[in-house]
Amino acid sequence: MIDVPHLRDICVGTSSKIVMLVVDGLGGLPHPKTGRSELETACLPNIDATAGESALGLTIPVMPGVTPGSGPGHLALFGYDPLRYVIGRGALEAMGVNGIDFQEGDIVARGNFCTVDDHGLLLDRRAGRIPSALSEPLCGELDSIQVDSLDIRVYPVKDYRFVLRMRGNGLSENLTEMDPQRTGVALQNVKALTLSARATADAANEFVRQARLTLIQEERANMVMLRGFSGMPHLPSMAHAYQLNPAAIAAYPMYRGLATILGMHVLATGETFADEVETLEKHWDDHDFFFIHYKPADTAGEDGNFDEKVRVLEKLDTFIPRIMDLKPDVFLIVGDHSTPSVMANHSWHPVPFLLKSPWTRAQGPPSFNERSCALGVMGTIRAVELMPLALAHAGKISKFGA
Amino acid sequence: MIDVPHLRDICVGTSSKIVMLVVDGLGGLPHPKTGRSELETACLPNIDATAGESALGLTIPVMPGVTPGSGPGHLALFGYDPLRYVIGRGALEAMGVNGIDFQEGDIVARGNFCTVDDHGLLLDRRAGRIPSALSEPLCGELDSIQVDSLDIRVYPVKDYRFVLRMRGNGLSENLTEMDPQRTGVALQNVKALTLSARATADAANEFVRQARLTLIQEERANMVMLRGFSGMPHLPSMAHAYQLNPAAIAAYPMYRGLATILGMHVLATGETFADEVETLEKHWDDHDFFFIHYKPADTAGEDGNFDEKVRVLEKLDTFIPRIMDLKPDVFLIVGDHSTPSVMANHSWHPVPFLLKSPWTRAQGPPSFNERSCALGVMGTIRAVELMPLALAHAGKISKFGA
Repeated sequence: MIDVPHLRDICVGTSSKIVMLVVDGLGGLPHPKTGRSELETACLPNIDATAGESALGLTIPVMPGVTPGSGPGHLALFGYDPLRYVIGRGALEAMGVNGIDFQEGDIVARGNFCTVDDHGLLLDRRAGRIPSALSEPLCGELDSIQVDSLDIRVYPVKDYRFVLRMRGNGLSENLTEMDPQRTGVALQNVKALTLSARATADAANEFVRQARLTLIQEERANMVMLRGFSGMPHLPSMAHAYQLNPAAIAAYPMYRGLATILGMHVLATGETFADEVETLEKHWDDHDFFFIHYKPADTAGEDGNFDEKVRVLEKLDTFIPRIMDLKPDVFLIVGDHSTPSVMANHSWHPVPFLLKSPWTRAQGPPSFNERSCALGVMGTIRAVELMPLALAHAGKISKFGA
Repeated sequence: MIDVPHLRDICVGTSSKIVMLVVDGLGGLPHPKTGRSELETACLPNIDATAGESALGLTIPVMPGVTPGSGPGHLALFGYDPLRYVIGRGALEAMGVNGIDFQEGDIVARGNFCTVDDHGLLLDRRAGRIPSALSEPLCGELDSIQVDSLDIRVYPVKDYRFVLRMRGNGLSENLTEMDPQRTGVALQNVKALTLSARATADAANEFVRQARLTLIQEERANMVMLRGFSGMPHLPSMAHAYQLNPAAIAAYPMYRGLATILGMHVLATGETFADEVETLEKHWDDHDFFFIHYKPADTAGEDGNFDEKVRVLEKLDTFIPRIMDLKPDVFLIVGDHSTPSVMANHSWHPVPFLLKSPWTRAQGPPSFNERSCALGVMGTIRAVELMPLALAHAGKISKFGA
């Protein structure tokens, strides 16, 4: 298996700097009318020029045919085999939000406010995407729910999202989720997957019962769904695995959570990518690896909005010169998975990437898209192979064997 | 490892339909005179047109440089790692022939009638390919052979082929084969590979001794060879692994046997590909996955008959519109291995494939052959990766992780 344990002994700390720009949902599919994908449609002068000086390829996020969630997709980019390291959504969310008190032994879950009808059938999985201004007071009400002797807290995340934290003795994360993944049907009860998880399942269901009574008069957010129950994850840190001093720059909480779990320094930043680039510039001297995250491509793809995905890729392109001006030793543009607008969803399709360094076999036209990358000199590789390649091109892996 | 166990939890049953057309021995090599392979020589208007709307690639059947038999070649196409799941040739044959009584604890072997000289040296491994009309009465004679207290049966398969079934206590499949794979040398005795297989080896050799006495007056079929000793195989079914309701359409017994082992519904069909396509049409509403098998390309290749392989590929091409008219959600043309006419044998060369679905990054010229597929957008992949890709393109794999 290609994985962090194999690299631990041969990685060396150096002053060279790696920037990994993760474009969430980067890959796409051709528009039925034009035959061109989002990347092929967008006008990307800076990215294309960089591609002309870079080695291109495609990454398979997890394994062929498998569509990853954001967690597995990012884990692979940082060199952690997502089939081996599994992190619950609850922990990802909890660790990404400032001020959440999440400790060893706690169980956290990602919560959605949602809308049900009088018969309890699901009408809207996101309660009409109610804004934080509406959801935060509701979180305050849910926060006062008491179940047995547990210490229960409800923290707002953003819009319709919250985190439930349960603290007590003998809690277990081995629970099923409530989300039926479609509307028109009833929510599922939380069920224990092991005998020892029964008490935790009962507590979660009792919380939901009380939450429904609390919210019953609400127009949209009249119910909650819980998923991704998880305890504190334990993964080898990137510092330990790679001899790095890594930093993460991400506006969205979940990606900060993932970075925290991998031991990255999560830098304070703003809500926009302009803020993120400013943060990168400001902390340039402090770290040797920067993960910088661009979310809008995934959001537009998930909304099925081809033109918007093209637009946000073009917007991203305008920031590339500022990153290049920092002269990173290795620069990568990668994606955690594809989100083709025509599918309005994450997908399994291999994801374009470029790797810029003086030590590549760069070739081909200055053009960054699914088809140019399919013919790229780096070939089609597993995403988990990217990190060793980035480290190698930065001179951070010593010789294996005599 | 890419393998069925990882997919089990994320596959979902849907109404979408997959057709996998397996062209046995599909891949070839250039003709020394023209520099063009069988596929490049053949006139394939329908297949080439389909290729123009499909994603192309090559499959490595087992691992680089390894030439597979039909069993491993097909297992990989259905997503079962052939290095992990080993099925004896005897079991493949036995399960493909109607009316063979093969149960748990039995040992079966594939038998060949063959020709030896007075010194027992092998003259013809297939007894001049004697027809069933001659071999069936001989099988009847062999069927009356008695060895110890074993229940021994001999079943005709086709032409020079038969199945030997041994039933009794404590039998073992851990036996060597008799076939020296070349003429002019003596047949090999059956030898035990483990201590506990000694009695079974003795019984097999005693059967062969009596068979030789029974056949000694025959002109061509004056001896038998046994190989592929095997007990009942146990593999996870495709229904269990993929949430599929799969059907197999194959004129040749061995492929029906393999399909049975994987839990496919083996549909009754005739001797020709026209019969097979008619069977596909007739049962279209009953299943969500169809394996349909085309044998003549392999036969022509094994005979070293380049022109005949070209001809049977052109014949296959005429049936493509009928399959397309059924509008499968995912259509694949694949091969279990290459059988280059110039080698007159199976080979290790990667095998062309096409995958047609609305969700591919289809590209390139309408041309289906070894070289166009080597440049295809799907790249060169392991055959075992095809099935997850087929399932993904049919919307039958749900998201992995949050």
